[in-house]
Formats: sequence, structure tokens, C-alpha cells
Amino acid sequence: MAEKVLTMADIGEFGFIRSIQEGCRFSPDKVIKGIGDDCAVIGPYADKLLLISTDLLVEGVHFVLDTIPPEILGRKAVAVNLSDIAAMGGEALHLFCSIAVPVQTPLRVTQSIYEGIKAMCRDYRLNLLGGDTSASRNHLMLSLTVIGEVPEAEILYRHGARPDDILYVTGTLGDAAAGLRLILGDLSAQDPFAERLKAAHHRPTPFLQAGRLIARSRLASAMIDLSDGLLSDLRHVCEASGVGAEVQQAGVPLSESLETLAAMNDLDPLDLALSGGEDYRLLVTVPGENRAAFEKVFAAGSPCRVYPVGVITAEKGLRLRKPDGSLQEVEPKGYHHF
Amino acid sequence: MAEKVLTMADIGEFGFIRSIQEGCRFSPDKVIKGIGDDCAVIGPYADKLLLISTDLLVEGVHFVLDTIPPEILGRKAVAVNLSDIAAMGGEALHLFCSIAVPVQTPLRVTQSIYEGIKAMCRDYRLNLLGGDTSASRNHLMLSLTVIGEVPEAEILYRHGARPDDILYVTGTLGDAAAGLRLILGDLSAQDPFAERLKAAHHRPTPFLQAGRLIARSRLASAMIDLSDGLLSDLRHVCEASGVGAEVQQAGVPLSESLETLAAMNDLDPLDLALSGGEDYRLLVTVPGENRAAFEKVFAAGSPCRVYPVGVITAEKGLRLRKPDGSLQEVEPKGYHHF
Repeated sequence: MAEKVLTMADIGEFGFIRSIQEGCRFSPDKVIKGIGDDCAVIGPYADKLLLISTDLLVEGVHFVLDTIPPEILGRKAVAVNLSDIAAMGGEALHLFCSIAVPVQTPLRVTQSIYEGIKAMCRDYRLNLLGGDTSASRNHLMLSLTVIGEVPEAEILYRHGARPDDILYVTGTLGDAAAGLRLILGDLSAQDPFAERLKAAHHRPTPFLQAGRLIARSRLASAMIDLSDGLLSDLRHVCEASGVGAEVQQAGVPLSESLETLAAMNDLDPLDLALSGGEDYRLLVTVPGENRAAFEKVFAAGSPCRVYPVGVITAEKGLRLRKPDGSLQEVEPKGYHHF
Repeated sequence: MAEKVLTMADIGEFGFIRSIQEGCRFSPDKVIKGIGDDCAVIGPYADKLLLISTDLLVEGVHFVLDTIPPEILGRKAVAVNLSDIAAMGGEALHLFCSIAVPVQTPLRVTQSIYEGIKAMCRDYRLNLLGGDTSASRNHLMLSLTVIGEVPEAEILYRHGARPDDILYVTGTLGDAAAGLRLILGDLSAQDPFAERLKAAHHRPTPFLQAGRLIARSRLASAMIDLSDGLLSDLRHVCEASGVGAEVQQAGVPLSESLETLAAMNDLDPLDLALSGGEDYRLLVTVPGENRAAFEKVFAAGSPCRVYPVGVITAEKGLRLRKPDGSLQEVEPKGYHHF
């Protein structure tokens, strides 16, 4: 019998990352955090830390050019990258963008992608400082690297959550996942709801201002951005912090658009809110004694609302508190490329 | 008549880079150099500048997995990236590596690539601090970002060359291009020459030690690494510096292996030395008054030899001084992906 040839599918992306994570530091000086958070952290340089994050977007895997205008793709690629800087409380400063383009791709497509990238640079005061340009065989691919700064005393990691900390998210959940299903034609909805949900998928907002506000307040204990889905990213925080969490079903914020879509299509919006990816909200943990002060930071005039969605527990694993008061073990069903 | 749809082939990689280079700086504070040198330069942080360089390697464009063992591919990807840090006189510190892998790729291939990457991290005391892992549809792709440091007073750019500066290279030229043609079966040669030339293509050495030595000496005026070929990269230096150059044919250093291969295959080794890419030697310009001091730096015991290959001229353009004393205008024929 022939031996099975293992592929990435057999160990998964996270398994692979774990397998390469060991033995990666040969100049540990000035490395604060390597693989395993939203950004790598180096420094300090004076009282600042440098944040670096990279993202890869592959045609046919992360996007399909038929369903996203190239300028919007450029914008989204940057937004996703910036969200990692936001998740550590940083200010984004410099961007590097490499692109591999099939030889037959019309120049205006490549230029539109760059127009989207540069529009984001303008909107978020970033410097586009470099990258690489290459041909590719069949598919377009983007690789972005963003560099940011954060005061050393303010940085927030995934690993700071403690039992009884309160969980907050910075916006409604599940909209982007619903938008993707609308774009793919799996669901239907009327405007303005359809437009809003599609926009949530196409035009995510990096919560940089909110991230800085939270970091500067020094009231939070941990932070992450929601790229894979609430449960999946919450598990990252819990594993890094050695804790568990309980999510309050009634507290999970849903948009009117998502609720309308769910009613029309007879589906459970909670599924999308808990497990749908690409919301790019921030998930923040706040010690109970800071609750009032934290909510005051996000009172009228702040860049966004925050919603309490649960609590960190000493008991590991994730549980969902149902409206009837019962508690149910839950498992993330994040998106897997392999 | 249908209008022709323009592609990257119509404006070329450098034309495209020029078209996106404008309007890229929205926080010019702390940006010393953006697009247009071997690395972007930010800072200063205390008396140091940070160097950042990115490289993209696409299967079927930059490499063919049938002709390069995956571990060697991983090593080479890092070497190429480190060469950009060497070209500015920097010390390489941190590496980020993103990889897109076709679903059917055997796991041992992906792991071997990473073994090569980690071996280079060990050899050059780098920290592998992050990256991204994704599926791809058909082809493997690597995107690397390296971060280095250089003392502010020592950095070398492409733009510092002045008329009468002497041109040096840090090793023989054309070996990597000859090696590629051997690997592809276009030429033949006997060992040990064949092995040495293939190794020049597969296992380029980043000249980090030599780059630091040159920068620290403060005797040079400009530096670049030879990735596209001597003439092509020399033109980058000349354009950035507003000068021209004359290359002395008799001074171009050729290895014994290349000369043997050329004789066996009835080809002109000078073609490969002037226009073959991927040598990854450093090209350095040195003011005439520093000549003796510079050559003393590279006397016995230094990490490599340096070879004078020509001189910078006030007159723009590139010229080749033939052994008979005549002067010939030359044009780079660099490699083009599109």
C-alpha cells in the first residue's frame, strides 16, 4: 500500500505555524514578540515599540476578481493589514505592498488595485514605501506588510486576559459573512440591507482610532481583531492567556440588516455572528473594576460603540450562555484554507 | 477595431513602479527613503536607521520546483532579501516570511522550504518573527520581508556616486547566469566547474559582512547589489546619482569555471558577466582619493576580494572600454518578467 503523502490539509494552517514557531530567534535582543500575536513587536526604540504585520491575499482563495472591484480589493487588503495594528493599540505608519500579476491581466486592473491601496494610504496617513512587482502564472496575489508604532506602556497583547475580565466588541458581528453570502448569491436581501451587508464584506473599517483610544486609556487587559470569527479569535485570546470564556448570547450585537436578512432567508443570525469571519471589529478584555471607566471612554462622541458580550473564566474552553440561562459548550468553526 | 487592452508588458515593471511612486507619503516624518533604493529607510531611532526590504518569489517565474530543491529555495529566498540589506551597509535582524502553497503540495516540500529559511536565520543570526500562510490555486509563492539596522552616519544609497568615483564589485560576475543555463540544460560543462556554477545560481551569498565593512569604513559614495546584472544595476546607480559610467572590459572579474564553460560552449563570458542576473555581489563606488584606503580594507583577511571594474563619468549613459582602447555605448539587457 502506498504511503499517504501529507499536505497542509493534514495539519492545518495553525498546526503548520506551530511546527515552524520553534527555534526562530537568533538575535533575541530587541524582540518583544515574534510569531503568535496580531503583530510582531520589536524595540524599544526610545519609549516606542515597532509593530509589524504581514498579510497575503491570493486570487481564488481570498478573493475572486469577478466579485470585487479591483479598487475595493486594494482598499480591503490594506484595511485587513491595518486591523492588526489596531489590535495592539498602535498607530499605523508605513506600508509595503508586493503584487504578482498574471501577464494577461489588464493594466487598468493592476492600477485600480493600487489606486485603492493609495486611497487607504491617504485616508489613514500611511507612507507607501516599497514592495515588489512580479509576473505570476495564473493568479493575482498581494502581499502587504504594515509597520506601526505604539508607546511601550500602552501595548495590548492577546495574552493579558484574566478571569472575570469583561469581553467587549467594537461593533455588530456577522455582517461581513452575510455580505459574502449575498455576493456569492447564496442568500438574497433587499436594499438598503443587501448593500450594507455587502459593504461590510467589501469595505471593512480598521478600528485604528478605537484601538488607540483603548490602548491610551490603559483600562484593557488584552485585545485582538476579529478576522476568523468571534469564537475562533476569542479562543486565540483564551489560549494565549491560559483562560476560558463565556459568551452571553443575548449580548451579541446584530445589525438590523443582518436580522432582516436572517428573517427573510430563514437562517440563524447568531451562527454568522459567532463563526462568520472578516468582521474586523476589535475584541477587548477589560478587568471588572475598569468597567465603568471603560464604558465612559466610549460614551457620546467616541469613534464607535462597544458592546459587552461575555466574560473571561478561569475554566478553560468556550461556553455560550443561552437566553434561557443554560450553558452550552461551543467550538469555533473558523474558515480553513486547506 | 477593438482597442488594445494594455498589460504590464506594455509599460514594464520599472514603468509601473514609476507610475505608482507619486503621492505615496502621507506621514513624511521619519521617512528617509521610500520606493527607489534597495531598502526603504525609516528613522532615525537614536543614531540608527531601520532598513526594510521585501521580495516576492513566484513559482514558474522566479523558480521551478523541478530544478531547485525546496530547502535550497528557502535559503535562496532569504539570501536575496538579505542582499538588499547588505547593499545599504546594514545589519540584518528580523525576517517575515509569507507563503502561499497549492493544496496538493506535499507537506515535506513546504517544510523543507522552511528548513532552508530557518537554516539561513541560524547562519545569519536572524529572528523569524512572522508571516502569513495561505493556500493557493496552482503555484507556490514566497513573500519575504527583512528588517535591518544601520548607523545613520554609515548608510550608503544608490544616489551618492560622483564623477571620477571608481567602480568596484565584490566578486566574479556571470557565474549565476551560467549556472542557470546549466541547470536548464542549455549549456554543458564538466565538474567541478558545472557544480560551482550551479551553486552560484542556487546558493548566492549575501555580502552582509562586506557591506558592513564598506559602510563602516565611510570610504564609499554609493552601493547597490547586483540582482539584475552589472549594466542594469549600474544604470540604477547612475540614474539615481545623475551620472554615467565607463566599464573597463579587461577589469570585469570572471571565474575560472565560467571561462572554462565559455570555451567549451563557444560563448562570450562577458555577455553573462555584464547582463546575467542574480550574482548578488555588491557594486560600490569609491571617490578616487579613497582608493588606496579602500583597497587596504579589503587586503588579506577580509571577507572577500574587491575588483575595480570602471569609473563614474559626468557624461550620462553607459560605455564599455574594449581591450583595444575603443569605447562602445552599451545598453543593459536585464531580465524582464512581463
